Amino acid sequence: MGMTMAEKILAKASDKSVVEAGEIVMANIDVAMTHDLTGPLSVESFEKIGVEDVWDPEKIVVVFDHQVPADSLDAVGNHMIMRKFVEEQKINNFYDVREGVCHQVLPEKGHVVPGEVIVGTDSHTCTHGALGAFSTGIGSTDMAMVFATGKLWFKIPETIKFDITGKLKDNVFAKDVVLNIIGKVGADGATYKACEFGGEVTSAMSISDRMVMCNMAIEMGGKTGLVEPDQKTINYLKGRTTKNYEIMKTDNDAESLETVHINVDDLEPQIACPHNVDNVKPVSEVEGTHIDQIFLGSCTNGRISDLRTAAKIMKGKEVARGVRMLVIPASREIYTKALDEGLLRTFVDAGALVCNPCCGPCLGGHVGLIGPGEVSLSTSNRNFKGRQGSPEAEVYLSSAAVAAASAVTGKITDPK
Amino acid sequence: MGMTMAEKILAKASDKSVVEAGEIVMANIDVAMTHDLTGPLSVESFEKIGVEDVWDPEKIVVVFDHQVPADSLDAVGNHMIMRKFVEEQKINNFYDVREGVCHQVLPEKGHVVPGEVIVGTDSHTCTHGALGAFSTGIGSTDMAMVFATGKLWFKIPETIKFDITGKLKDNVFAKDVVLNIIGKVGADGATYKACEFGGEVTSAMSISDRMVMCNMAIEMGGKTGLVEPDQKTINYLKGRTTKNYEIMKTDNDAESLETVHINVDDLEPQIACPHNVDNVKPVSEVEGTHIDQIFLGSCTNGRISDLRTAAKIMKGKEVARGVRMLVIPASREIYTKALDEGLLRTFVDAGALVCNPCCGPCLGGHVGLIGPGEVSLSTSNRNFKGRQGSPEAEVYLSSAAVAAASAVTGKITDPK
Repeated sequence: MGMTMAEKILAKASDKSVVEAGEIVMANIDVAMTHDLTGPLSVESFEKIGVEDVWDPEKIVVVFDHQVPADSLDAVGNHMIMRKFVEEQKINNFYDVREGVCHQVLPEKGHVVPGEVIVGTDSHTCTHGALGAFSTGIGSTDMAMVFATGKLWFKIPETIKFDITGKLKDNVFAKDVVLNIIGKVGADGATYKACEFGGEVTSAMSISDRMVMCNMAIEMGGKTGLVEPDQKTINYLKGRTTKNYEIMKTDNDAESLETVHINVDDLEPQIACPHNVDNVKPVSEVEGTHIDQIFLGSCTNGRISDLRTAAKIMKGKEVARGVRMLVIPASREIYTKALDEGLLRTFVDAGALVCNPCCGPCLGGHVGLIGPGEVSLSTSNRNFKGRQGSPEAEVYLSSAAVAAASAVTGKITDPK
Repeated sequence: MGMTMAEKILAKASDKSVVEAGEIVMANIDVAMTHDLTGPLSVESFEKIGVEDVWDPEKIVVVFDHQVPADSLDAVGNHMIMRKFVEEQKINNFYDVREGVCHQVLPEKGHVVPGEVIVGTDSHTCTHGALGAFSTGIGSTDMAMVFATGKLWFKIPETIKFDITGKLKDNVFAKDVVLNIIGKVGADGATYKACEFGGEVTSAMSISDRMVMCNMAIEMGGKTGLVEPDQKTINYLKGRTTKNYEIMKTDNDAESLETVHINVDDLEPQIACPHNVDNVKPVSEVEGTHIDQIFLGSCTNGRISDLRTAAKIMKGKEVARGVRMLVIPASREIYTKALDEGLLRTFVDAGALVCNPCCGPCLGGHVGLIGPGEVSLSTSNRNFKGRQGSPEAEVYLSSAAVAAASAVTGKITDPK
């Protein structure tokens, strides 16, 4: 009997040759990521344990992204706690305010490779499965134990494999595919499952697109998102990482494997409507909805491909009167590329505000909050009540293309 | 007997042919500016007056700059109050989150011309005197009366004219000159005076440099800063404004005129040290002071000339390890120019964080706050205890050149 990718990775990490779904293992952690918002609690919990040194400073990555630059004394305080921790523990993999969103910085900087186990104190840590790692969000107290021991227990998850076939229309993107899946499966439809994305559509996707898919796995309850590594993965890693890695793939006869078939031939752009990510409708059903703010960015859709798509739509056009648009490249690397390619100029000319790489309005706790009665269209991953500011505001989620087309019209618009 | 510039402008605004220092006049206001932070109180006070419509919507300018994008529900609330006011009162001169710092946006957009009276609910409204207007900061309740009546009372100020002669060294800039003056005069040394900057050094200065001088007039207690308009002023206004304007100049025999002579031949870069703007020392006395954060920006020194100066120093170099640098162009126009000229790329390559046009850390209420024990070197205009965040932090003020040189070394450095 074969095993799934998730099983193989966790088996290796726990020094076992075979594991079964439901089994509990103690796995060695390859990468432990924390950021400015959840890091301080991890540090505080670690200090309570009473161990002096972290298990391996080279395996810890600290990224400031949620509140950069610091917008309050609380945020400054968090930054100072983390800078002190990084210095005391000799953590070299530290990305201060300038580098960008953790889930983008980690793969860019070569911390993510196939076959490894990655944990992060952020729910969208599942993004890294796009490169074939088992990567998942954990709590700050769990992270404290990882800091101390380098290990964490996992219940081996079952796997849902989404076999995605067909051909995407020009106006349809990875975000639409994954929103469509979440709409079908439901916000708790894949609870604690490893969500593996496969099929010809996933194979044809860029690494960025695969990150979009895996990023959203948590929004249907998934323990992680995963994509089988291929030549694209290998190409992406070239020049980024010095780590050795092992590519693991799901066996077709794996016992815990459930396969769901999705055809995207007729898929139109998808919108997650207030106030749940699984309240997904085709754009045609919500077209014309008035928008106050557009957010193009986040660990979901703040990559160079998203900015290119949006800039192409917005080139020579203007953000609609009364609408504000925030463009926030997900990392310094992306910001620099977008600058060199003239994309930032296109956005600024159109009247958008280009901000420094950070999480932006996604979390409703730094910049770009929306007020009572306001409506946001966002390329990020969550639209819960109050997520981007006021609980009396509404958040719609879409692809970068829908966001750009809607910025120009001031209402939800199909970019076709 | 002649009159000063300030007297001539206020005489004209109050329909008088002659006024004297100390006299109280009711002047017609040409431009009334308010922003997102002080605007809501102006609006609230205006509504209490019970007048339905503002006196002249075309003479009111509203700029969002202090908290853009909104970083809290309070900030969003302020924005919403102002957007509603702007819409209700049919105010066309409204610059939402994307345009930049009010004191830069007003002259750029042609709202500032010589000979007019400008009031703004911000202390650095005195900046506009650089173009020969009488421009001053007022309280929000005074602004309410301006909204209602278009008039405000003024006591005619006496004038101190700084006759600045000599030749600036290559590493010395307008900011150094004005800091030097403030250090000599003291924070209350020019209380309620019109501070006119003249002499060959001022004549040789660009409009941007003159804005630096006038911007800081309030830091010695001045009612306004002023520079006599010349061909440079006329050139600056070309293509920016459609207003007619009258150039007024101080008569040498004006009764209320006091002239102070300043020679800058031997001037070295100046630093305002914690915790007062008039605690000014030559850079040689504080060189080597460790810095945690550098802020290049603000209505004082966030202009294209400042970014050019700083980029020239930082080109091919890196921000020192452990130091964070925020570069915040003062307006969209400046941001775009800096982008086109490759300056933003230089800053990002050096490891600085480029933020969207806004007031930034200057006010300690939006982004870029500093924490207890931290030290900031800032090109802005105030270094009071707690100004940029924690009251246990320290703020040094300098020119853009000193800021750039210090970013590279991580300590206060002479850019010579």
